[in-house]
Amino acid sequence: MITFENDYSCGAHPAVLQRLLETNLVPQPGYGADAYSENARQKIRAACACPDAEVFFLSGGTQTNAVVLASILQPWEGVIAAQTGHIHVHEAGAPEALGAKILPLPERLGKLDPGELWSLAASLLADENIEHMVYPGAVYISHPTEWGTLYTKAELQAISEVCKEFHMRLYLDGARLAYGLMAKDSDVDLPLIASLCDAFYIGGTKCGALCGEAVVFPQGAPAHFCNFIKKHGALMAKGRLCGVQFDALFTDGLYSEIGRCGVEMAERLKIILAKHKIPCFMDTPTNQQFAVLENARYNAIREKVPVGFWSNPDPGHTIVRFATAWYTTDAYLEALDSVLSACPCTE
Amino acid sequence: MITFENDYSCGAHPAVLQRLLETNLVPQPGYGADAYSENARQKIRAACACPDAEVFFLSGGTQTNAVVLASILQPWEGVIAAQTGHIHVHEAGAPEALGAKILPLPERLGKLDPGELWSLAASLLADENIEHMVYPGAVYISHPTEWGTLYTKAELQAISEVCKEFHMRLYLDGARLAYGLMAKDSDVDLPLIASLCDAFYIGGTKCGALCGEAVVFPQGAPAHFCNFIKKHGALMAKGRLCGVQFDALFTDGLYSEIGRCGVEMAERLKIILAKHKIPCFMDTPTNQQFAVLENARYNAIREKVPVGFWSNPDPGHTIVRFATAWYTTDAYLEALDSVLSACPCTE
Amino acid sequence: MITFENDYSCGAHPAVLQRLLETNLVPQPGYGADAYSENARQKIRAACACPDAEVFFLSGGTQTNAVVLASILQPWEGVIAAQTGHIHVHEAGAPEALGAKILPLPERLGKLDPGELWSLAASLLADENIEHMVYPGAVYISHPTEWGTLYTKAELQAISEVCKEFHMRLYLDGARLAYGLMAKDSDVDLPLIASLCDAFYIGGTKCGALCGEAVVFPQGAPAHFCNFIKKHGALMAKGRLCGVQFDALFTDGLYSEIGRCGVEMAERLKIILAKHKIPCFMDTPTNQQFAVLENARYNAIREKVPVGFWSNPDPGHTIVRFATAWYTTDAYLEALDSVLSACPCTE
Amino acid sequence: MITFENDYSCGAHPAVLQRLLETNLVPQPGYGADAYSENARQKIRAACACPDAEVFFLSGGTQTNAVVLASILQPWEGVIAAQTGHIHVHEAGAPEALGAKILPLPERLGKLDPGELWSLAASLLADENIEHMVYPGAVYISHPTEWGTLYTKAELQAISEVCKEFHMRLYLDGARLAYGLMAKDSDVDLPLIASLCDAFYIGGTKCGALCGEAVVFPQGAPAHFCNFIKKHGALMAKGRLCGVQFDALFTDGLYSEIGRCGVEMAERLKIILAKHKIPCFMDTPTNQQFAVLENARYNAIREKVPVGFWSNPDPGHTIVRFATAWYTTDAYLEALDSVLSACPCTE
Repeated sequence: MITFENDYSCGAHPAVLQRLLETNLVPQPGYGADAYSENARQKIRAACACPDAEVFFLSGGTQTNAVVLASILQPWEGVIAAQTGHIHVHEAGAPEALGAKILPLPERLGKLDPGELWSLAASLLADENIEHMVYPGAVYISHPTEWGTLYTKAELQAISEVCKEFHMRLYLDGARLAYGLMAKDSDVDLPLIASLCDAFYIGGTKCGALCGEAVVFPQGAPAHFCNFIKKHGALMAKGRLCGVQFDALFTDGLYSEIGRCGVEMAERLKIILAKHKIPCFMDTPTNQQFAVLENARYNAIREKVPVGFWSNPDPGHTIVRFATAWYTTDAYLEALDSVLSACPCTE
Repeated sequence: MITFENDYSCGAHPAVLQRLLETNLVPQPGYGADAYSENARQKIRAACACPDAEVFFLSGGTQTNAVVLASILQPWEGVIAAQTGHIHVHEAGAPEALGAKILPLPERLGKLDPGELWSLAASLLADENIEHMVYPGAVYISHPTEWGTLYTKAELQAISEVCKEFHMRLYLDGARLAYGLMAKDSDVDLPLIASLCDAFYIGGTKCGALCGEAVVFPQGAPAHFCNFIKKHGALMAKGRLCGVQFDALFTDGLYSEIGRCGVEMAERLKIILAKHKIPCFMDTPTNQQFAVLENARYNAIREKVPVGFWSNPDPGHTIVRFATAWYTTDAYLEALDSVLSACPCTE
Repeated sequence: MITFENDYSCGAHPAVLQRLLETNLVPQPGYGADAYSENARQKIRAACACPDAEVFFLSGGTQTNAVVLASILQPWEGVIAAQTGHIHVHEAGAPEALGAKILPLPERLGKLDPGELWSLAASLLADENIEHMVYPGAVYISHPTEWGTLYTKAELQAISEVCKEFHMRLYLDGARLAYGLMAKDSDVDLPLIASLCDAFYIGGTKCGALCGEAVVFPQGAPAHFCNFIKKHGALMAKGRLCGVQFDALFTDGLYSEIGRCGVEMAERLKIILAKHKIPCFMDTPTNQQFAVLENARYNAIREKVPVGFWSNPDPGHTIVRFATAWYTTDAYLEALDSVLSACPCTE
Repeated sequence: MITFENDYSCGAHPAVLQRLLETNLVPQPGYGADAYSENARQKIRAACACPDAEVFFLSGGTQTNAVVLASILQPWEGVIAAQTGHIHVHEAGAPEALGAKILPLPERLGKLDPGELWSLAASLLADENIEHMVYPGAVYISHPTEWGTLYTKAELQAISEVCKEFHMRLYLDGARLAYGLMAKDSDVDLPLIASLCDAFYIGGTKCGALCGEAVVFPQGAPAHFCNFIKKHGALMAKGRLCGVQFDALFTDGLYSEIGRCGVEMAERLKIILAKHKIPCFMDTPTNQQFAVLENARYNAIREKVPVGFWSNPDPGHTIVRFATAWYTTDAYLEALDSVLSACPCTE
């Protein structure tokens, strides 16, 4: 069995699972007060070069986005995001359910444009009716974005400066951060992110863990954040489950290794797609590749291998996501190559 | 290291972890559409003798209580619970955050009294001002209760009849259901619960899993419940994590075995407490024993072994929870015996 | 036609209506920026001897309670109230719908007892599990209470001291404040309330206005409170409607006169009830009198004059509210006397 | 004093105020059970040719939009609206605060285009990831729109058909409905609206009342809607206040007369704007005219007469709203003519 449907199709990276095995019967306090969570927090602080950061572990990405955004927004504020932002499109309204109205901006290769961000914030704050509107209180970006693209260091700095100018918090969704950090030619690393963001999360679920995301507040967390997590149903009794996993992920470079594997497999995937004359929707340096397929070919392929539906750019075509991950092997790629050969272009 | 602090101090039952290992690299679809989750659902339906039940897996208890209650209540309804109910006291307001006002009743050994339940529902619905009040829409019970006590079959039937009379849904929180099902002399089993409740959950986190609770709707789930879970941040991308674990828990009687172990260890714990002249707050047939300690003795004990603070019945005493679980061993009990010998009564 | 059903059965005090007539065609800005609202704010500040108070006008009591409580509570906090508190019983869950869990205390003649308040706050804040619970963040009292009773100056000071000790905000619901301020022997006035409370409202709807409540924050309002009001649907476009009315109510002692009238009529009502051997549920110095009637007599009376159902203390009796107001006249009382003569005691 | 700032600058139409005076001292039950409210409901049903409609009175527009939308949406649904829709831009996030995520569409002269609506609904419902998204459950339109434009009968029918095809409810915000109904050449009347919408409201605040909006559910209201109103702080104790006013508004054609006056004054306003070479942003047949002014001229004008800021199409210009209403007189127009003469074009 193989799959390119997403990057959460298998369990945990074997080294993560091994660590769960080793620690399984050592009793620990609950709710994140265990020694493994503390170790993981220390390692994450070190990786971020941010010794005073506060770190929390939540179980999933949508939950994390909603809880963190709600915690950093004031009641009169909303969050600016790209129209394609995960929080705006694929979270079933979870941020709004916690009170965070989303102020959408057009996406530019999946990203926010610093100039457009400046204009929106400036025009909102200059609006004479602002007290009847939603103030721009935070900016949501994802890195990699929903299209698998990456911000450059200069872009992140520009966005951060806009945020500072308008007293907006900068929040980065790092669901697939491992793949972003290890992309070729990227100049963005964890210390940079920690130096620019007010909050961000290091994704576990899609980067080698069974579940779990590590939320980092470089300058400290909102007051009583643990109570806030509990109130929104996101406090795990066995906090150790995330603690052990992130401890493993941040030991001996495993998180980087996972990212590197996913990216390398994606580069080889691109070659296979090109060989079969499948155009990519945009050039993407991370582990998700978005291909444009005529519907007949899409349907033929999906019968043989799981791939991810993304959208219909027109009635006759489908944009399809091919995702690699730490568990993608040569055998996966070879099998895909065969499938694509058996499903030629129909146009 | 030993602990009696709670029943979620260790990882997973070894058989559960073994199953995670075996299935780790088999790719599966996300969000609960995997084969393991489907197997687990079938086994749970069989165990409940309820072939048409709908089953969902969520990651934790507070989340499950809030999401399920919100899904079964109408906007004009609230939920009746014992004053000691977990949703009322120890969930940081999570149910209210999703719109479920709690209508408290006195607890009788941790339980709701069917007669008092009848009176409350009847008086609310007869109140001429009810349209300015909160209608009784559901009844929350836990089994075992927060005091570790159990309903009898007759009590559950009586409560169910009151619910039916007043068109209230009956919801059972089974965070520690394994220990309740295996308690000596209990006449309550899963088919009975499934026949009486509109919704309940079979606890995993405290009964051998790393995380996860299995929500069962015997007569079918609310419409679009999966979207509702997502909206409230509770949909796991790797649904397989819960699926594999519950598949293991409901294979070869493991869930019962876990319950049996916890209860047996609790029975032996009771003997040790009695030997050391430590009175229990009430007689409890499950895995939690609530002991009344003078504060000095409590402080002496907690320095040597983790136990759970519960409450202060008076300024000089503390009610302390001693919890057993599937991981409690003879060595745990022997060590406790020694600790208690070293911390004699101070009164 | 006469009525004793409540204190909002008629329109506005004629002097209030007259002021609406006089100002009707003078154009003014919206949303509370009109000159009448500003006048009213100045007069209320003067009446409260609190020149720096911030004052806002909302349209009704339930709305005001929910919005103000939500604005002064932190996400981890709830509000302590008497079990009989209006917010707990008769607001359809409105405070909880805005996130304010209510922590109930027993009522003592409708009031909170300062000692019991101290004990609850102290025990919550000492609870080792408080991070899983709801912190006590505010205290809700009503003056007059739901039973028409009044706090003394000493009681309010004692409650305020408890609040200060535990960093809780004190909020006073003054839906019927006019009647409380003018009750015989009360030593509580507006400057005292303003000196002790963090927020309170001066009721208009039940004290002579068509609608409207004046919220007072003696030490300043929460940031962007106007936006908060808007967000919760409570910002009136024609803010002048409340402004003009409160301007009139706080001109030439009208608010006091309204209170005095209601109280005086209630004193005469008590004499009539006593003459007809109708016992009061408790001794009440304000405009609401709660009488205990056998059900047959209650039903006979309500056919002839509107009175208010309150509750059933036992299956054979009903507690009935007889409310007076600024519009209660001698003719009302004489008509009631006749009705009661025609509906004798049936026991 | 004159104003063109908005259409809620004065009190009530004199005939409305007169009716409040006449009824002031007639006691009535609270919460909308009064005879005046019942009369008003009957007259509205008749005006809508919809004898089975359920009618409720709320105090303001933002409140009404949020409460009604929340009541007609299922938990998995959101509401489609134009990007310029009042609920999306000028309600401080009130709909989202009650759980209604807004799905924006481009505006076409302030309106939704039926074809674009069809495409959005169709593409959402065909999306394979819809269970992670927000279903289109309702469509919000305003008539007149935020730009003062009007739907034609054919456009409303086309939108209604799209709604029916996709099982979406159609909701119409009629804050300024009087002016829309009386616009020249409009073929939309109340019976048409009632026949096409699942819910709509007839605006009072901006059409002659002190406050109040009449919500109409032509096919019946959501269950326990009165409780829902209460829960969201929108139930008026003195329901008579709205009842009396709408009774007056729907007696002897007053609502139409108010609309006719506002529209006629707007037509004369347009002539004055044209005379002074002030371009309108678009051709608008109702009581709001949006003029494009260079900033210097805008600032000169606003010092002499209140007008409404709308937006900045570019840094040097401002779009300004000139609103007429039932209280706009010849003297208002003459004064404006003089002001504009004194503030010539600066470009």
